[in-house]
Amino acid sequence: MFISGCMLQYALLHLAGYDSVQTEDLKQFRQWGSRTPGHPENFETPGVEVTTGPLGQGIANAVGLAVAEANLAARFNKPDAKIVDHYTYCILGDGCNMEGISNEAASLAGHWGLGKLICFYDDNHISIDGDTEIAFTESVDKRFDALGWHTIWVQNGNNDYDAIRAAIEEAKSVTDKPTMIKVTTTIGFGSPNKANSYAVHGAALGTKEVDATRANLDWNYEPFFVPEEVKSHWSKHIDLGAKLESDWDASLEEYSQKYPEEAAEFKQLISLELPENWASSLPEFTPADAGDATRNLSQRCLNALARTLPGLIGGSADLASSNMTLMKMFGDFQKNTPGERNVRFGVREQAMGAICNGILLHRSGLIPYCATFFIFTDYLRAAMRISALSEAGVIYVMTHDSIGLGEDGPTHQPIEHLASFRAMPQMLMFRPADGNETSGAYKVAVLNRTVPSTLALSRQKLPNLEGTSIDNVALGGYTLSCNATDNKPDLILLATGSELEIAAKAAELIRAEGKTVRVVSFVCWELYEQQSAEYKESVLPKAVTARVSIEAGSTFGWERYVGLKGKAIGVDHFGASAPANILYKEFGLTVENLVAKSKEVMA
Amino acid sequence: MFISGCMLQYALLHLAGYDSVQTEDLKQFRQWGSRTPGHPENFETPGVEVTTGPLGQGIANAVGLAVAEANLAARFNKPDAKIVDHYTYCILGDGCNMEGISNEAASLAGHWGLGKLICFYDDNHISIDGDTEIAFTESVDKRFDALGWHTIWVQNGNNDYDAIRAAIEEAKSVTDKPTMIKVTTTIGFGSPNKANSYAVHGAALGTKEVDATRANLDWNYEPFFVPEEVKSHWSKHIDLGAKLESDWDASLEEYSQKYPEEAAEFKQLISLELPENWASSLPEFTPADAGDATRNLSQRCLNALARTLPGLIGGSADLASSNMTLMKMFGDFQKNTPGERNVRFGVREQAMGAICNGILLHRSGLIPYCATFFIFTDYLRAAMRISALSEAGVIYVMTHDSIGLGEDGPTHQPIEHLASFRAMPQMLMFRPADGNETSGAYKVAVLNRTVPSTLALSRQKLPNLEGTSIDNVALGGYTLSCNATDNKPDLILLATGSELEIAAKAAELIRAEGKTVRVVSFVCWELYEQQSAEYKESVLPKAVTARVSIEAGSTFGWERYVGLKGKAIGVDHFGASAPANILYKEFGLTVENLVAKSKEVMA
Repeated sequence: MFISGCMLQYALLHLAGYDSVQTEDLKQFRQWGSRTPGHPENFETPGVEVTTGPLGQGIANAVGLAVAEANLAARFNKPDAKIVDHYTYCILGDGCNMEGISNEAASLAGHWGLGKLICFYDDNHISIDGDTEIAFTESVDKRFDALGWHTIWVQNGNNDYDAIRAAIEEAKSVTDKPTMIKVTTTIGFGSPNKANSYAVHGAALGTKEVDATRANLDWNYEPFFVPEEVKSHWSKHIDLGAKLESDWDASLEEYSQKYPEEAAEFKQLISLELPENWASSLPEFTPADAGDATRNLSQRCLNALARTLPGLIGGSADLASSNMTLMKMFGDFQKNTPGERNVRFGVREQAMGAICNGILLHRSGLIPYCATFFIFTDYLRAAMRISALSEAGVIYVMTHDSIGLGEDGPTHQPIEHLASFRAMPQMLMFRPADGNETSGAYKVAVLNRTVPSTLALSRQKLPNLEGTSIDNVALGGYTLSCNATDNKPDLILLATGSELEIAAKAAELIRAEGKTVRVVSFVCWELYEQQSAEYKESVLPKAVTARVSIEAGSTFGWERYVGLKGKAIGVDHFGASAPANILYKEFGLTVENLVAKSKEVMA
Repeated sequence: MFISGCMLQYALLHLAGYDSVQTEDLKQFRQWGSRTPGHPENFETPGVEVTTGPLGQGIANAVGLAVAEANLAARFNKPDAKIVDHYTYCILGDGCNMEGISNEAASLAGHWGLGKLICFYDDNHISIDGDTEIAFTESVDKRFDALGWHTIWVQNGNNDYDAIRAAIEEAKSVTDKPTMIKVTTTIGFGSPNKANSYAVHGAALGTKEVDATRANLDWNYEPFFVPEEVKSHWSKHIDLGAKLESDWDASLEEYSQKYPEEAAEFKQLISLELPENWASSLPEFTPADAGDATRNLSQRCLNALARTLPGLIGGSADLASSNMTLMKMFGDFQKNTPGERNVRFGVREQAMGAICNGILLHRSGLIPYCATFFIFTDYLRAAMRISALSEAGVIYVMTHDSIGLGEDGPTHQPIEHLASFRAMPQMLMFRPADGNETSGAYKVAVLNRTVPSTLALSRQKLPNLEGTSIDNVALGGYTLSCNATDNKPDLILLATGSELEIAAKAAELIRAEGKTVRVVSFVCWELYEQQSAEYKESVLPKAVTARVSIEAGSTFGWERYVGLKGKAIGVDHFGASAPANILYKEFGLTVENLVAKSKEVMA
């Protein structure tokens, strides 16, 4: 596995014989429709395994790739058959090392003793603003030592290839710690006037300096020309790679003979198909079933799925007992028990998301989930966005989803978070209302292996409602109840999650006064938007403009469904610290207020 | 200065004689309307200087407080008069140390050599999920050593007060490095059955264990009773504090006599009032002035304000030359030049925001700004939210505000970011269209010392438009041009930033066909929302439903202004890597498309 940035990565893919990057592709660097966009993206260019660009994500991705390898190796390798056995290589620069996410990821890698993770720190002393002396004077080696890594220093990384080779060998010999090889280099090596300067970081050398560099390096070939000597050296890797692949195929065949059961599971995983009947394990509910917090219902789902999905692996950022994310039949993924599937991320939300991206993009069928309080998506948002962009179906289990968490107060109460994810492309944002909707959210989330899902789950207990179902969730928005005989109710109430119960109760009261009322659950806006115009008209008929939404979060965006004549009840401030029931009352998230507002829009 | 968490902090304030926390307040912990919310918040409780809750923010705040002290001390102290001279104390736990933001902040503190910053690491080996052995086995001391800190270990932090006192003295004696005092403690010390367990982290002890703890500690007083001995010990600090204050007042008086000019500036700063005529320095433009990127116009504003605002201090996360944030008349705030005002944050976005919160909440009149690419607000969002919650008017200078940045591609192109901040309470989100709007955004941002502002600024050049003005920005949304003689134009076009030019051009074309068209600039939604219903009707008359918005970002939320009969042109996907003009064309952000959509809504 190999992670790096920009043109270098494309050039290496090209030299290594990837059809995906031809000479013509290299010439189209950063152009419309090319396979060589400004930053390598896994969904654009075969051979690119993770999406690069935002600093620090790469090393956390690499930790995730190494976690996937360690987990699968522990589960499937046998003393006489290693079918999972590879290193993860990563290059990181000064900028990556400044980012907090990289320290989080490195701390976990050290804790887990990921011996097959080998990182090269390109120590060139230059970042975009100039010499790193202006902002980065810590001792990176000593920090990695403190984090439990093995560290090596290659003093001349410009052309001391033997030292680099020796460092890699040494790194491989240390099996109980990840290795960080500090490679001191000169940025723009070979450029007589711009080497060792920030001028070569993000800008082209320019014709004149390119000529000077060619002269300096004695490089007399045309642009994009690969000399035969280089080509033949690199092309050896094509045959070598093919042989490695066929050897591995043969060893998997042998493994299948000896260990048919394990092989079946392994092949199922790497097929990237879900096992048959996996979804049948999800619990279903009726209104007679006792109510529960959706975070607890989520734990039932995770534990049910753990039995039918051998790929499920995940955990929480030090909130397992609040997020309810432990799979009870498994132990912890730790240095000495890497085959287990409960991951303890510590209070490292940012790295957690990016590590899950790495686990998923290992593309071996693992289905990572991770958890914290919904408010702390603010910490891992960059990684969540990379999930969406990278087509990585990570499942984000986000509990304590509103002011309903109560006493912890404004620093812990999500307000704008639902809206902020609804605005993000390629992210499914669920806010289930009860048991069936929680199961339904998991069903969609697991099915969507190339789209991440975020589940906002309640701390507080919620009843199982009449009219919910697992399958309805896939519609995104659906009619929970309606007493109109045609598609023209007097009023439409829209709600999600914990407020769906309020809407259902308000509807009863208004119906008792002789009105026709429809209650619509908007559990996942993105799925609703994918429905046909006809379906949407059947749920939200254009002719009915008396609409009120209620949701314990920002009202931002609800105009899409309530229109300019409707009303949106929500929380457009930072909340407060008090018991949840008091907050609901004080902030007008009540049946009474919903009835009152409904009467206003019907007037 | 003192930073800590929850009940302990309230109890200390109470003992220290703060009127704000009476016995009755302590009894109302976590209750509606109390001064003792679940997490101490600076806007609720006098004596609380920063808002706590999200882990890792505290140490970064502390670094900001220490930066403010160092900057002001260097600028105003004289060999014979130290008017700025205090330590910043911070307590951080295992969880804080796991967060990446704390490593970023600590790395900067070490780099800057903040000798008057003293942090206590409460090394109790317990976090919410249990023993830190499960996720946190790095050597924290060694890491801080590597970051350039002085480190001290107090082995028995439970009751070896002499060792703690000695550690503080040692820390004070080290003046060129911040100090981290690792204080090994037992969580729940004194509780016979729950000490050293995660059970005492977030939950109450329970009556039985409280009784057992009282017996164990031989504590025979009623709840909330403070024995006379304790009271008299603590009350000494009231007189001591009063004396320190009057001494300082006297020394400031002396300073004012000796150094009247410096004293005038210092008093101006700490008055928290803005100097007279500060805003007159902001540049004004006419359509005849050459167009420019709003990031460049922003630099003109910052450099103009730097001359009239002695409190302005700030910088970028290693993108100063892209964000255009250098104040050219100043040098860098560095270890040996702490009186300078350009701050080099390195690639540490999260700490940058939280450090700015600390600088501002030092409440000495400093006006911090910080910068990165708009997309990387994903990294510092948690700190930005704390700015909003804490009533800290930090100015966030966010350039490369859309797909208009071009070749860097999807990982660098903000899409949902405008919507995500518009949904956040107490945050002003500006997207200026030209020179006047950029100046206007700065004017509002500087005026709002208790509300943070985010400015989304273009990489690409934009023309100065007819109809913009500095003062119009304060209205949030205003009519740029309208050829209707009444308040009933045939069409309203709404736009922000770089797309306002497109709207103006489209309006011209449609007007040429005999229609009346109004163009509205929506530079800051939050300010528009604050206007009167009458004003709003004058801009967006209810009777006119033919409305089209255009903005190079998510259309999410635009229904608020275009209604269900209008249309929103935007970018509801992740963009692409290519030159900006090609992206605008491919994604339909064109005059032609706006004209076409306008005709549809008018039909």
